[in-house]
Amino acid sequence: MHNFTATYTDQYQLAMAQVYFQNGHRESPAVFDYFFRKLPFNNGYAIFAGLEDFLEILENLTFSDSDIAYLKTREFPEDFIEYLRNFKFRGTIFSAKEGDLVFPTRPVLQVEATMIEAQLIETILLNLLNFQTLIATKASRMRLVAGDRKLLDFGLRRAQGPGGFYASRAAIIGGFDGTSNVVAGKEFNIPVAGTMAHSFIQSYEDEISAFRAFAKGRPHDCVLLVDSYDTLKSGLPNAIKIGKEMEEKGQKLGGIRLDSGDLAYLARESRRMLDEAGLNYVKIAASNQLDEFVIKSLLEQKAPIDLFGVGTNLVTGSPDAALDGVYKLAASGGKPRLKISESLSKVTIPHKKQVYRLSNSKGELIGADAITLREETTIDWMHDPRETLKSLAVDGYAMEALLHPVMVDGKRTQPTRSLEEIAFYAKERLETLPGEYKRFFNPHIYKVGMSSKLKTEREELLFKYRM
Amino acid sequence: MHNFTATYTDQYQLAMAQVYFQNGHRESPAVFDYFFRKLPFNNGYAIFAGLEDFLEILENLTFSDSDIAYLKTREFPEDFIEYLRNFKFRGTIFSAKEGDLVFPTRPVLQVEATMIEAQLIETILLNLLNFQTLIATKASRMRLVAGDRKLLDFGLRRAQGPGGFYASRAAIIGGFDGTSNVVAGKEFNIPVAGTMAHSFIQSYEDEISAFRAFAKGRPHDCVLLVDSYDTLKSGLPNAIKIGKEMEEKGQKLGGIRLDSGDLAYLARESRRMLDEAGLNYVKIAASNQLDEFVIKSLLEQKAPIDLFGVGTNLVTGSPDAALDGVYKLAASGGKPRLKISESLSKVTIPHKKQVYRLSNSKGELIGADAITLREETTIDWMHDPRETLKSLAVDGYAMEALLHPVMVDGKRTQPTRSLEEIAFYAKERLETLPGEYKRFFNPHIYKVGMSSKLKTEREELLFKYRM
Repeated sequence: MHNFTATYTDQYQLAMAQVYFQNGHRESPAVFDYFFRKLPFNNGYAIFAGLEDFLEILENLTFSDSDIAYLKTREFPEDFIEYLRNFKFRGTIFSAKEGDLVFPTRPVLQVEATMIEAQLIETILLNLLNFQTLIATKASRMRLVAGDRKLLDFGLRRAQGPGGFYASRAAIIGGFDGTSNVVAGKEFNIPVAGTMAHSFIQSYEDEISAFRAFAKGRPHDCVLLVDSYDTLKSGLPNAIKIGKEMEEKGQKLGGIRLDSGDLAYLARESRRMLDEAGLNYVKIAASNQLDEFVIKSLLEQKAPIDLFGVGTNLVTGSPDAALDGVYKLAASGGKPRLKISESLSKVTIPHKKQVYRLSNSKGELIGADAITLREETTIDWMHDPRETLKSLAVDGYAMEALLHPVMVDGKRTQPTRSLEEIAFYAKERLETLPGEYKRFFNPHIYKVGMSSKLKTEREELLFKYRM
Repeated sequence: MHNFTATYTDQYQLAMAQVYFQNGHRESPAVFDYFFRKLPFNNGYAIFAGLEDFLEILENLTFSDSDIAYLKTREFPEDFIEYLRNFKFRGTIFSAKEGDLVFPTRPVLQVEATMIEAQLIETILLNLLNFQTLIATKASRMRLVAGDRKLLDFGLRRAQGPGGFYASRAAIIGGFDGTSNVVAGKEFNIPVAGTMAHSFIQSYEDEISAFRAFAKGRPHDCVLLVDSYDTLKSGLPNAIKIGKEMEEKGQKLGGIRLDSGDLAYLARESRRMLDEAGLNYVKIAASNQLDEFVIKSLLEQKAPIDLFGVGTNLVTGSPDAALDGVYKLAASGGKPRLKISESLSKVTIPHKKQVYRLSNSKGELIGADAITLREETTIDWMHDPRETLKSLAVDGYAMEALLHPVMVDGKRTQPTRSLEEIAFYAKERLETLPGEYKRFFNPHIYKVGMSSKLKTEREELLFKYRM
């Protein structure tokens, strides 16, 4: 539903590109790392999401005729505009697999392209990957507390404009079962679900008439909203009556939805009333300002809720509005590059790199990702990039390479992965992660370190720049 | 850049529409109110934004052929799908002017349409208006603390996916001067600005070479990022050297940008160094995790900053991820409707309505909006819809009607307003608001009340439903 063109970028990318173009750096090669510094939600891991969308958009990204016409009004030199008219990303991308677990400071993705091309795609890369990774991680937190209960995304109305389209997709990667968002359902092949609004009940003379009309029209999919008048005194008795009427027709009432009040209490009472009426198959859905904390609390109270509908707090990733992902130069003109800072945690890591996930002889993860120079295939130690005194001997562990070429010379090199496939992969990967990193509060800190060689290279470069 | 079709909706809208369709309520008239319950950011007002986009999209909203093909796979009856194939919104909309000040509980906008049409547009209406109103309000808070300093939106990379497109627009309505977002600049005719990234500096052998190359290529627009190595020991001396070189060519260095460290201290020292070098015309720009609190603090410290570049906290509306705008039934089938609740603050207000802003004989706002039945033209008292004991005599004040017909029978009735015009209107309206409602902390609470007639109607309906 979006038509992205190459003006989906920041002005300074164009300004820098123009200068590179005029300076003869038109074909000058560069390497950029995409990584983040801080896990969102105080979570123990993040789930990488958005890659398929990004690659699909990138493969077709050009400046449209109207983009060019606009840029001509903006004080750019004629020959540079001509260059933009023919712009296409022809670079190479090494990336984590979408759905994989990712951690701070290690490259999630690495771009190798001309300086100009690498800069012109920075904004759209950050925009798409930061957001979906944030939402997939938020969704995953809800999935972990919800166990095998159904989780549905109801957030489109409170999403940040058309960001809601991608939020629904990312929620599935994080473990949601479906969405109310019809266009996302259509475009991403997500199961779509929904019930009824209060306005539906209000528009009938009484609650039972509204319920009956809905059951008649949607017998395969009938979830009744029971809190319009009085949940236990009106909504439940009426829903039970409809459930019985449906039984007489050989149909089954699907569920009831609670959308206000004390959800734990109301769910328990509703369950009891439904069961006493022989409607033990009728599910209980709950909504209303849910987040992972509320879901956790409801389940600790043993609220018999089968399905949670989550809106605002899911699709906006509240309270962390953004993942702090950045895109930093690691090499240019064939030389390794470093961004220095007085704070070691903000000094970047130079060179083309690879990242390895380490596991022991039983195949269990040891909770460490090692960053190496691209060509290294063995490592003995890994060193924390932010704390000079922290090192870990990692000799002898099995190493799984995490960055894979997904685009070479501007062409995708891997078959498209379906959303279902990515969500399944995310689930599998999360299962491999030891429990202490999945703890809801104060999870154990997953270790990320550089190989000894990379550490030395970085220190030498840092020394050179700080002289 | 977005191609919205009518599947940009929630599944339950389609489910309810189907039932209305089958129940012979196909042409049944309905009235819905769009309003919100709580001001974001503990602010004293909100700025209504997003209307032009919404109306433009609405006027052209249909189900595409691929939408219809998709819906055919989804268990909807054939005749209802046929209805959707011909769907077009043919209703009437009364709305606040975009850019006007809006307050909790009063209708911001009222939709009159068939029940089906009114439901099918709910999600897109909420999605677009909630978000832009949130961001315009956030931007306005920053504008009030920034005085006449320049404010630029730098947020696209951390925006919630394509929501960033509309965030840049809403920021202008709230009082921003420009954006780094090129596509928003192009589509909404917003001034576009930008400087350079750290990667630009890093990609040259030294800072002065990078500065010189940029000044050569972009002499009309040269803002140098000075914190790559050492702001005061390297960045400033090099920028001053470039400024002097530019003077020799009859050019002028535009500015420097600070992006890390203690911005107040660095701005003061930078100003001093620039002035001592005779470069008093060179502006100082600052960025790095800014929000209205940081800007306020910097200006209280008298930091000589001319321009603020604001990213994440602007475009995500952090820490309030969403405006809580809702869409509630006020009438259907020709009868007023009410949503009841045990909490009076959640009981809706029935009927077709008008909202009046009151001012005294000197033309000054008294800080009150009165909600009336549509046909009322005078009011004597207004009554708080949430607190039964709060009433205010408002006899004799001048009344400005705030809801205007902007669409009649599916056609827009007013000329398109440019973004510039809307931003100017917002500024004017904000100037009319007494200072106590614009206070940064604990602003005075603007009063919203119902006319005596409307209060009586609501109470009678409430009594009827709660019997």
